[in-house]
Amino acid sequence: MDTQHQRPGAGLAPFFQAAGIAVIGASDDITKIGGRPVHMLIKHGYRGAVYPINPKGGTVQGLPAYASVTQTPTAPDLAILAVPAAATPAALRDCAARGVKATIVLSAGFTEAGPEGAALQAELVAIAREHGMRILGPNCLGTVNVAERLIGSFSIALEENMPPVGHVGIVSQSGNVGSHTMQSVARRGMGVSRFIATGNEADVDAADGIAALAEDADTRIILCCMETCRDAGKLIGALRLARERAKPVIILKIGSTEKGQAAAASHTGALTGSDAVIDAVFRRHGVLRVRSVEALIDIGHAASLLMPRRLPANDAVTLVAASGGFGIMMADAMSDAGLSLPPLAPDTQQRIREAVPTASTGNPVDASAQMSARPDILLKMLTALLEDPSASSVALFMSLSLYNARLRGIYLQALAEVRASHPDRLLMVISQGPADAVEQINALGIPVFSSIDAAATGLAGLVQLGRLRNCIPDGTALPAWEPVDPAVFRNEFHAKQALGKAGIDVPREIIARDADEAVRAAGAIGYPVVLKIASEDVAHKTEAGGVLLDLADADAVRQGYAQILANVARHAPAARIDGVLVAPMVAGGTELIAGVSQDPVFGPIVMVGMGGIYAEVLKDVAVQAAPVSEDEAAEMIRSLKMFPILDGARGRPKADIAAAARSVARLSEFAYRHRADVSEIDMNPILVRPQGQGVVVLDALMIPRAAPAH
Amino acid sequence: MDTQHQRPGAGLAPFFQAAGIAVIGASDDITKIGGRPVHMLIKHGYRGAVYPINPKGGTVQGLPAYASVTQTPTAPDLAILAVPAAATPAALRDCAARGVKATIVLSAGFTEAGPEGAALQAELVAIAREHGMRILGPNCLGTVNVAERLIGSFSIALEENMPPVGHVGIVSQSGNVGSHTMQSVARRGMGVSRFIATGNEADVDAADGIAALAEDADTRIILCCMETCRDAGKLIGALRLARERAKPVIILKIGSTEKGQAAAASHTGALTGSDAVIDAVFRRHGVLRVRSVEALIDIGHAASLLMPRRLPANDAVTLVAASGGFGIMMADAMSDAGLSLPPLAPDTQQRIREAVPTASTGNPVDASAQMSARPDILLKMLTALLEDPSASSVALFMSLSLYNARLRGIYLQALAEVRASHPDRLLMVISQGPADAVEQINALGIPVFSSIDAAATGLAGLVQLGRLRNCIPDGTALPAWEPVDPAVFRNEFHAKQALGKAGIDVPREIIARDADEAVRAAGAIGYPVVLKIASEDVAHKTEAGGVLLDLADADAVRQGYAQILANVARHAPAARIDGVLVAPMVAGGTELIAGVSQDPVFGPIVMVGMGGIYAEVLKDVAVQAAPVSEDEAAEMIRSLKMFPILDGARGRPKADIAAAARSVARLSEFAYRHRADVSEIDMNPILVRPQGQGVVVLDALMIPRAAPAH
Repeated sequence: MDTQHQRPGAGLAPFFQAAGIAVIGASDDITKIGGRPVHMLIKHGYRGAVYPINPKGGTVQGLPAYASVTQTPTAPDLAILAVPAAATPAALRDCAARGVKATIVLSAGFTEAGPEGAALQAELVAIAREHGMRILGPNCLGTVNVAERLIGSFSIALEENMPPVGHVGIVSQSGNVGSHTMQSVARRGMGVSRFIATGNEADVDAADGIAALAEDADTRIILCCMETCRDAGKLIGALRLARERAKPVIILKIGSTEKGQAAAASHTGALTGSDAVIDAVFRRHGVLRVRSVEALIDIGHAASLLMPRRLPANDAVTLVAASGGFGIMMADAMSDAGLSLPPLAPDTQQRIREAVPTASTGNPVDASAQMSARPDILLKMLTALLEDPSASSVALFMSLSLYNARLRGIYLQALAEVRASHPDRLLMVISQGPADAVEQINALGIPVFSSIDAAATGLAGLVQLGRLRNCIPDGTALPAWEPVDPAVFRNEFHAKQALGKAGIDVPREIIARDADEAVRAAGAIGYPVVLKIASEDVAHKTEAGGVLLDLADADAVRQGYAQILANVARHAPAARIDGVLVAPMVAGGTELIAGVSQDPVFGPIVMVGMGGIYAEVLKDVAVQAAPVSEDEAAEMIRSLKMFPILDGARGRPKADIAAAARSVARLSEFAYRHRADVSEIDMNPILVRPQGQGVVVLDALMIPRAAPAH
Repeated sequence: MDTQHQRPGAGLAPFFQAAGIAVIGASDDITKIGGRPVHMLIKHGYRGAVYPINPKGGTVQGLPAYASVTQTPTAPDLAILAVPAAATPAALRDCAARGVKATIVLSAGFTEAGPEGAALQAELVAIAREHGMRILGPNCLGTVNVAERLIGSFSIALEENMPPVGHVGIVSQSGNVGSHTMQSVARRGMGVSRFIATGNEADVDAADGIAALAEDADTRIILCCMETCRDAGKLIGALRLARERAKPVIILKIGSTEKGQAAAASHTGALTGSDAVIDAVFRRHGVLRVRSVEALIDIGHAASLLMPRRLPANDAVTLVAASGGFGIMMADAMSDAGLSLPPLAPDTQQRIREAVPTASTGNPVDASAQMSARPDILLKMLTALLEDPSASSVALFMSLSLYNARLRGIYLQALAEVRASHPDRLLMVISQGPADAVEQINALGIPVFSSIDAAATGLAGLVQLGRLRNCIPDGTALPAWEPVDPAVFRNEFHAKQALGKAGIDVPREIIARDADEAVRAAGAIGYPVVLKIASEDVAHKTEAGGVLLDLADADAVRQGYAQILANVARHAPAARIDGVLVAPMVAGGTELIAGVSQDPVFGPIVMVGMGGIYAEVLKDVAVQAAPVSEDEAAEMIRSLKMFPILDGARGRPKADIAAAARSVARLSEFAYRHRADVSEIDMNPILVRPQGQGVVVLDALMIPRAAPAH
């Protein structure tokens, strides 16, 4: 049995719903890892059987203890292992013998502790697979099902209180980050459905957790903290499931910036960071990626208040503050976050001026302190704003007004009334508290952000979430194809021929074996032409004197042929020469670079970027897991910082982006089909000509995968 | 009397220290603008005389009221005007007659309300200047001197409590933003010295406020919210004063992103945003600029706890958390903020492992939950970190631990002990509260940030503050010079000659009036040469067929001369022709662009950027107010995103950055000297050759200022 081929989330039910739970290594000391789960299961009212397992027998925390899980009165569905690492294999075998379906290994001392620990971890996996049992962990913070009071965890966040029952599901590799998220969510007054912390992920991983929450009827939104992704297929399967079930997934992906970026032989390899790949895969599969735990909680909270009907329909927002200064700050932050600030309709402006004569009715609205003089004034203004057709969201800045009892009353009354009369529009508040006033506003279904920056990040995230929910997962169907013999990949001529057959626009090129053939080839291709040495042994053709450009006639070709051979003979006397490549001289257009590299998790990755040293220094590239559709490729090209250069900046002709996208899509399909044989590909440069005139791949390099060791 | 020539901050003393205060428009209603100052002066215990002025006489809030300020028993130093805008000129004349030294005009209805209001505002200024009186406002939130209980304000932030007496001075144009800052500072437990909100700035502006706080013995740090700068000289004077008095200035400059960017005829004008100019001027004069009101308060708070001895000496920080996940998040955020994470010394690592055997001793330190098991363990670990020589700051992440009573005790004990034994190193904490625990930690002189992002922004700001305090203001002394007749500026040849005399490396160029002269000139310059039409009437020389490159011999020059004249005659028959410019053909090197534009406030601005369309699309430029020193110019060049291209990226030769900086410095001096005559200058391209080989300005354009209307 291999998890690689398991349906994500399969077999996870007993981690959340178990008729009985054995705690192996149970202790009377409630500060110990073996004491906490027993204590919390009792304290918080778990209704199933709890079986403390302790070789000494007797009782543990008042419950009868058993020397082994094999001796419990009934077979528990779930076992929690809190014994030293070395003792876990034996305990796990006992669980298997007793018919336990799932085990949570809380103990540390496995892969994270070195080679010995890694061997122990492998042993656990082997035992579990042999018996069809799932393992969570080791070195993990376990699971919680809040409604069931099932606590398979020693999280200190549960020491005093359980979070309220609710609809937020939490998946985290890091126990601490997950625990912090659960506690923060609860402190915001949000309810939690289930919690799962996956730790070392010997078996169950974050993708399983996402899938399990997607299938859980109580969970409406999934918050995830992920450090590494080990199985691309499983993650993508889980994300598809979440989308099918209409459950937004928000992921805080941490710490991937400098990892996994293998040394690479090609430009593409050096330009493709694995963090950018994660970004692209998340975007494709409808995940909102956030950059801080605060954003995870802020946006998760807001989304849970707004779902499903009040997620913003577009990126337009109306801003209102009692102060011009704060209005400008909001405008700066919201614009920086990519949101738009449309002007208000004239009628709306008129209505605002009727409510607040001193208001300036731009966007941001500077409504002056007068707006909060009376609840009816504020209500009139907010009503006008929520009825304005231009923006789908309204953000109201409150400074520290809620700390003033009089103003607090005015704000709360107006907000309650406008929310009741206009339940379907996104209204958000920026305020630092006090906490109980914030809770009252939240209870109206109005999210509250504690700073202007948090509100801008939050609203941009909500807009993206709305968009992601509507995007359709890519279902690129690959057309039929003929496999290519990987032997050709080292040779520029044959590599380009193969790419040409795959639908990529390569120039017509002919290999000439002598000067006469070269002249005939040039005649067939049309002058002017380029001559290039054809040899797998000459990597840097220009430096070897192996390239001549812009040859205008037969004499020049004849002379050029001789000269190239002489240059190369001098520069690389041992090189095997296939002949000289004759190609048309192409000029005019903008240079792109495209390529393929291998991500250890997501496989072949296609990259497109601006050509030239300027773009290279800025790493101005876009990536996506292959294959990509032409639409996706066009979107990648449009996302480049320097896209304006292709799009007619400073009076240049618009470039043929559709043709460029076609080439990138075909390249991605080629790479996907030959993923077993090709390691890296560079197409550099791709000359993108003006609209309607297509592209030409001027040079291409393929690096085959190293032959497998025998 | 013109404020432009006044010493910044002069005459502001009575706004903060007054023997008597008249409140004109005083009211019994303490919710009105005219009621609040009287109420708060009484309530908070101002010790001087308070004279309510009200035409009805009688009493106001229990104090005897006077019909006019001319009738008060003693002459008040300060008058607060809270009468309708139309009534302010008469009230101000009364103040002048009574010998009032300073007036705060709280009333609105002036420049911000339209032309009539602007006329009223001008009238106020005229009256005040005639009588040597300073005006604050109109449309402002006034002043507060906390120690003196002097409240010349109607800020709702003071309705219930005064902030504690302390050392933070606050200057704000926006009353609301300033008031929010004062309240937030107080809520953090920080004391305030003085507050000044400048509103419409008819007379006193934010620069005056900064200068007044710089001179105030009680103020140790200045927090400023600025919307616009009206007088560059006064602002720079105020910042110099603050630096001389060793008072850090932190400014939140808002809303300048899209303003003040006049339509411009040159590349330079289009590439130079006034926000970037403000950035450059602030940096030059030691101001820390922040981007949010939270950062203003966070960094202001931290700096006030750390000053003077614990500001970080360098950008290196050691991170520690009980969780690997949070450690990685901290590392990501701190790296993104430009901070460095050096490895710990081996001895430190050993000491940490002795304290916490399960710790992983990289940076971030993953100290596991064990670190907070006992106070002595935590103390040992923190001591080792604070004694480590590699970083000047230590940041400790606490998650929500302070909400757990047991952990709170452990943390507070260890922090108190390590702070006592190691008072001089920066130790900061990341924790969300609870508030009273945060206050206890602050009381130890340890700043607490509520999120990882805030801590990263905050520490980066503190590092910059440390650096800014040590930087020496630029004192570029301009060498002697001969003025240039502005008539030459429209002519490329003469413009370049003038720049050449100013010390800029322009190529040797000769104007030829006929083909023979051109051949002689080419011989003198040396082949190959370039020919260019010399005509003020041909703006786009290349398009007109007026440029020929790379002419190798006398025949080519002779033919070329004729061809250029023919081309131009066809293309621009009416153009007046001065002749043909003969110049050396220069190639090889990297292209920069440099130029000068005019900022409405800061005058001539010098810009340098990478040449070429890629750089232009990305607006990869650096700016500074002219003149700049060669060091500043080199720093500007090094700050370009594409600087690696000049610095030897991908095996290119390193460029002659010193020569490029010299040219930029000379350009800035030229622009500064001719600021009355020159509007814009482009030097595009500047060819920067390999180190030691200098630069050549290949083309230059000067746009003289429009002649003044008579």
